Parts: sequence; C-alpha cells; structure tokens
Amino acid sequence: MCVLDVRDFDGRDPAVKFIAGSVADKDAAKAAVAGADAVIHLASSVVPKTSNDDPACDVSSNLIGTLNLLEASVGAGVTRIVFASSGGTVYGEPTVPIVDESHRTEPISSYGIVKLALEKYIALYGREHDITSVSLRISNLYGEGQRHDTGFGVIASFCHKAVAGETVDIWGDGTVSRDFIHVSDVVDAFVAALDHDGDSLVVNIGSGTSVSINTVLDTIATITGREVPRRYLQGRAFDVRHICLDVGLAARTLGWKPRIDLNEGLRRVLEWSQSTANRPSSRQIDSSTET
Amino acid sequence: MCVLDVRDFDGRDPAVKFIAGSVADKDAAKAAVAGADAVIHLASSVVPKTSNDDPACDVSSNLIGTLNLLEASVGAGVTRIVFASSGGTVYGEPTVPIVDESHRTEPISSYGIVKLALEKYIALYGREHDITSVSLRISNLYGEGQRHDTGFGVIASFCHKAVAGETVDIWGDGTVSRDFIHVSDVVDAFVAALDHDGDSLVVNIGSGTSVSINTVLDTIATITGREVPRRYLQGRAFDVRHICLDVGLAARTLGWKPRIDLNEGLRRVLEWSQSTANRPSSRQIDSSTET
Repeated sequence: MCVLDVRDFDGRDPAVKFIAGSVADKDAAKAAVAGADAVIHLASSVVPKTSNDDPACDVSSNLIGTLNLLEASVGAGVTRIVFASSGGTVYGEPTVPIVDESHRTEPISSYGIVKLALEKYIALYGREHDITSVSLRISNLYGEGQRHDTGFGVIASFCHKAVAGETVDIWGDGTVSRDFIHVSDVVDAFVAALDHDGDSLVVNIGSGTSVSINTVLDTIATITGREVPRRYLQGRAFDVRHICLDVGLAARTLGWKPRIDLNEGLRRVLEWSQSTANRPSSRQIDSSTET
Repeated sequence: MCVLDVRDFDGRDPAVKFIAGSVADKDAAKAAVAGADAVIHLASSVVPKTSNDDPACDVSSNLIGTLNLLEASVGAGVTRIVFASSGGTVYGEPTVPIVDESHRTEPISSYGIVKLALEKYIALYGREHDITSVSLRISNLYGEGQRHDTGFGVIASFCHKAVAGETVDIWGDGTVSRDFIHVSDVVDAFVAALDHDGDSLVVNIGSGTSVSINTVLDTIATITGREVPRRYLQGRAFDVRHICLDVGLAARTLGWKPRIDLNEGLRRVLEWSQSTANRPSSRQIDSSTET
C-alpha cells in the first residue's frame, strides 16, 4: 500500500509507503500506483469556496492531475478506481427534496463542474481499459481529525469555536440545510467500493437526511450545555440552499448504510475538539489532503 | 464585428476585423472581445476521434481556452454568449429513440466530456456576471464548405469521394445512425440565439430525424445516379450507435426549426463538391475553425 500526498501527516501507519508529491506530477503519480491493483483517488487542491475564484487553476490542477493519475493507473494495470466525488455540488440546486443519482447535474461551482467531469473521465478510462470504477458522491463529510480553518467543513469549524467559546459566522440565515455524513461511514463506503463485485457505479453516499445549519448549532448547544454565539452574514452564491441524498442505490449495490447519526457524530467531534484544544494545530489532518 | 481564428481563411468579409490567434492565448481573447456585446464561441482544437487519444491536451486547449475567453468576455462587459456544444456527444448512448435536453449526459468521448463541462462553465459565468448564455447542442453538422479530410464530417468525406469515384470507408456495418443538420439551419439557430430575449438556455439543434450511414450513401447514389463503392471497417468505441435529437425546445424558445432536409442538403453538398473538385483544397474552410 502506498499513500501519495502533497505533504506528510501525523498518525500515519509507518508500514504504509509514503510518497510526497502531487497527482499533477506524472512521475509521482506513476511511482504511487506502481504495483497497485486498486487506486483510491481523494486528491483535490480546491474546495467549493475557492474554486470559483480561479476555475482555470481548478481545471489545471485537478482535471489534468486526475488524467495523469488515470494514465499512470492504466500503465500500471490497475483494475479498480474508487473516486471521491461530491454529492453536495454535482447536482446543483435540487429540484426535489431527496436527490437520487438520476437527478440532473447542474453544478453552481467550478468545484462541482470539475468533480462531474472527473466522474465521466474515470468512467471513460474504465470502459476503455477494463477498470471497474466507483465514484462516490459524498455529501457533507465531517468527523474527528478534520481541520477547522480551511473554509471547508462547517461542523469542524463550529465544534472548534464552540469548545473555544468563540462566535461562529453563518453565511445566510442558517436555514440552509445539508446532508452530513460521518467520516467513519464514508470509510466504510470506500471499503465497500473496493470490495464491489459488479458494474462500475456512480453512487450517493450520505445520511439520507438533511439538517439546517441552525439545527447543527442547536444540537451542539444541547450536547455542550452552552449556547454557541452566532453572527449571521450574507449568503454565498456558490452554496446550494438544500441538499439531501437518496442513498438507496448504495444500499442495493454496495450493501452500505450510514450508521452514525448526527447527534452521535457531533458528540465525537466535540470530544475530539476538546481533547485537541490545547495542542498544536499540526495534530490536525488537512481535510484537503491528497491520498 | 471581429473574428478570432488560429488561421485566416478564404471568402472572409474584408469589412470584418480579423485576429489570428487562439482563445487559449489570453491577449488574443481579450483583443477579440474588446467592445463586443455578444460572443459566438465555436473554437475547438479537437474532434471526437482525436480527443480520446490525448484528453489532457483536449482539456488544456479547449477547457482552459474557454475559461480565458469567459474571463475576457466578463472584462469586456459582454452580455451574451452563444456556444457551439455537441448534441451528438454530450448525451452518450441514448436510452430513448429521440433525445431531449433532460436526457442523462454520459459522454463516451473526451470531446463530449469537455463540451459538457464548457456548457456548465458558460452557465456559471452567465449567472455570476449577468450574461445570457445559449448553448446549442448541435447534431451532426454538414454543408458546403466543410473539409473532407479532417476525420470529422462524414457527409463531406462521402460526397468528396462520390464525386471523385473513390471507395468510402465505413466504421462498422453502416447501420449507425445520425441526426444530420445542414449548416444554413445551424446559422439560423445562431442568429435566433443572438436575438433570444429570455433566460439562458441549453437547447438541441438538429433535424429531429435520424438516418443511417448506409441510407446517406444510398441517397448520394440516387442523386448522382451512380453507386458509391463501400468498404466496411471495424466500429469505433467513441462513436455512439444512434442519435436523434428532439428539437421541440428550440421551436418553443428560439422559434427555430430546421428547413433543409437531407435530400436537399446532400444535393447542395454534391454540387459544391463537384464545383470544387478541380480546385486546390485551400478553398475549403476548416471545419474546426476558431471563430
């Protein structure tokens, strides 16, 4: 097993080979997949917030980078690719309350456009080179270990500030709702995708429920027994208002179901935020890590 | 009015300003759109056949190039963009006999993936900068002036060979069917899109009928009174088997309908092929022209 990442991180299993580099570097991509039968592709240099500022940079690093990785994978004889796509951005503004995989795809951010194009390139390479591909359209991922200071990961930011007693900033009126999924459930989905014994797939991975930003803060207040001070700011154009994923296809094809509800997930993250509150921030894992 | 093209061409209106250059060149793109209120984006450096050979090149030149053009257009205060998308490739293999704009989009070529991503970037810039965008998903375009030697434009190739008495090569058994649309109808669609007074659109432009490759050759034989010698070769993975576009939305939103049927269109192309048969090939306009 080998991890390709732009930088090293704490807590890494020393038995796992590590290469410092980007998928956008052909040699690094080749070295990382040499001898591999499966590739898990998590690399991304942008988040929705930053992608619209410089779409050309998003395309250059992430689309071209992934094409490098795909060419390297074909060269190495890889037979399976599992890709972290984005259930929160590829659909755009939903036309129905619960979105399944046949919903139209009209992203309102460069991030979503690139993730969608990547799904299609991965499927194309899969068809051409007999590679089974599974693109996981993951909803809003959160969990212990997520950085709170990247502009990505609202729960990490909220829990950090709740523990520190700081005021949280909310884009809009807090009625925007999201489908939050705990990292341990997402890890299970990747494992299920690696074991998947069928046709290539594009599949939603989410909780199947939707919760408003205000409800997240109310739940944090209930768990901690302390109100979280809130400051409401103007909404952002690249945020969809609501998203909730139908996860029936994942159950039918991967035998996967979410297990950690938001209450339990928030409890775990708050506990972790508390335990790390007085440690240096290098302990935290970069949520935009390339792996 | 200004034309930006990678090279100059015969038959150009001398009253129209001409800039030799690519949209991938930021300065050329800026110069071309300076003072314009509308941009017609036809530039593409690849065709479906070549796009899968080097997807990274497709992405670099066409996606990044278009992003340059969009940035330049925003800077110039452009209020309207009409884009030549591809009805023959963005849908992939149709799941229904006649494809409307809500059909799933699963391209099987890099060309189609990039065209689809471009539609979405154009819509994104449109929303962010109050630009009306119309993406025309054009079916298989043919007509007088199309080059016969680019690997793109089966009718141009067939008519050229029919006139020259040469054998035509057919990928597959000739039962593959296409929705052929004459260039004069497509020009009408661009004019209608420039005049469109409503919301941004993604709209099919085709004949609304589908004709097999064998039928095209039979029709050419009927018009010329002479069989066209055929050679059947193995099919190509990047060709969909059938495509026929539903053009109802174009009628409702743009007031556009196709007027030239295939018989009349083939008659015109054969006449033109005959008239140019003894002239140097530089008289022919490159079908991949950037404009």
